[in-house]
Amino acid sequence: MPGAVQSVERAAAILRLLAAGQGRLGVAEVASTLGLAKSTAHGLLRTLEQVGFVEQSTTTGKYQLGAALLHLGTSYLDVNELRSRAINWADPLASRSGEAVRIGTPLDGRVLVVHHVFRPDDSLQVLDVGALLPLHATALGKVLLAFSAGGTTLPDALEAYAARTITSRRALGRVLGEVREHGWALEVEEGTAGEAGVAAPIRGSGGLVVGAIGIRGAVERVCDGSGHPHARLVTLVRDAARNVSRDLGAPRW
Amino acid sequence: MPGAVQSVERAAAILRLLAAGQGRLGVAEVASTLGLAKSTAHGLLRTLEQVGFVEQSTTTGKYQLGAALLHLGTSYLDVNELRSRAINWADPLASRSGEAVRIGTPLDGRVLVVHHVFRPDDSLQVLDVGALLPLHATALGKVLLAFSAGGTTLPDALEAYAARTITSRRALGRVLGEVREHGWALEVEEGTAGEAGVAAPIRGSGGLVVGAIGIRGAVERVCDGSGHPHARLVTLVRDAARNVSRDLGAPRW
Repeated sequence: MPGAVQSVERAAAILRLLAAGQGRLGVAEVASTLGLAKSTAHGLLRTLEQVGFVEQSTTTGKYQLGAALLHLGTSYLDVNELRSRAINWADPLASRSGEAVRIGTPLDGRVLVVHHVFRPDDSLQVLDVGALLPLHATALGKVLLAFSAGGTTLPDALEAYAARTITSRRALGRVLGEVREHGWALEVEEGTAGEAGVAAPIRGSGGLVVGAIGIRGAVERVCDGSGHPHARLVTLVRDAARNVSRDLGAPRW
Repeated sequence: MPGAVQSVERAAAILRLLAAGQGRLGVAEVASTLGLAKSTAHGLLRTLEQVGFVEQSTTTGKYQLGAALLHLGTSYLDVNELRSRAINWADPLASRSGEAVRIGTPLDGRVLVVHHVFRPDDSLQVLDVGALLPLHATALGKVLLAFSAGGTTLPDALEAYAARTITSRRALGRVLGEVREHGWALEVEEGTAGEAGVAAPIRGSGGLVVGAIGIRGAVERVCDGSGHPHARLVTLVRDAARNVSRDLGAPRW
């Protein structure tokens, strides 16, 4: 039933379109962006509304993502084995390092944050779970790129997020070689000025890298005066990654 | 295009089925539960896998929800106006009341938690965002039922979650009348032994109730010796609800 498959693909494309950008679109915008007839886009949006995946504003008539997706997203987390195994090791890593901990997995050429433990202090912090981070500008992403089995690919252009973001593919290639050699990745003010991160790979039962775990915090706490991360923090991150990998049944870690 | 609409409905039903229960199902289980031909279920699952909405285990061959849904769910939160307006008032409510704060909206005959502020102490707490709570056994749910414009309906059987859960529709009807009269709802050990909650309605720009905000904590902190909630806490909750309603443009609150 190729027609059925196509309409499910198109419905998924509509949801992804609404998740990108501003989040509220009219039928005509959806149709023209996806190259669909307006009647086709309208039929799909009506159906998505009936199942709670989109909501239509009563005032503007525009469509946005619906509440049913939030529950589906949370349910994904509940069955996600990487997250459920990693949770036990993320809390101790945060308390021992004094920094925020994030666990990421590849999705659509970016890093999907599946778990986030706040830095253990009283500061106001925003939960990153569900956020998509750039691969080339985060320690988590560099790990996923370096140990990718082919499934994790870079976007064509490497966007500059901060003054020190690596935007040359050649320079990034050299860095990824170092990541593979050392077994962990560093990011210093490449995503956000003043912030640095360290991450290490998590391997699944087949031995392949299925995710990454890392800490992130103020560059003056994570790094010493010469821009190297404190060895104690690198050890903590690598130990956590090994412990999660072992719990996932990785044959070697 | 009725066929296309039907396949999107079926794809949505598969996702809801995977979100319920254990979360990992084979093709035959999906097909028999939803009354589909096995080839139809297989075609839909393959398509959902291609778009990242489901993942297939390489070891068991079973399907579970996919990572793309987590990002869609988080994107829903980003554009959700109720949540974005309520966040500003939820933090002060938690710090003034000393209790956890949750904001809920109706979904599929339950309460979907769209925001959750932890109780301001150092205890270990689990984030409820994305969880579905029972309408009849929570203060949030009683508010949504009492002020429902017809869209929020109870399940046929009222499940008992604790010794004091209201399981009689007649008794619940009386309680909902009081909620409408007082403008706020109370729940004392009806969802979980030892816990009590107070909630009040949030009205949107059209004046209809679009959600509820409430506190929840140990019954001995929320209530006095005779089982009544402390008046100070009720006032804090009602003030927060009014402030959110005003920010949403409610004509009266």
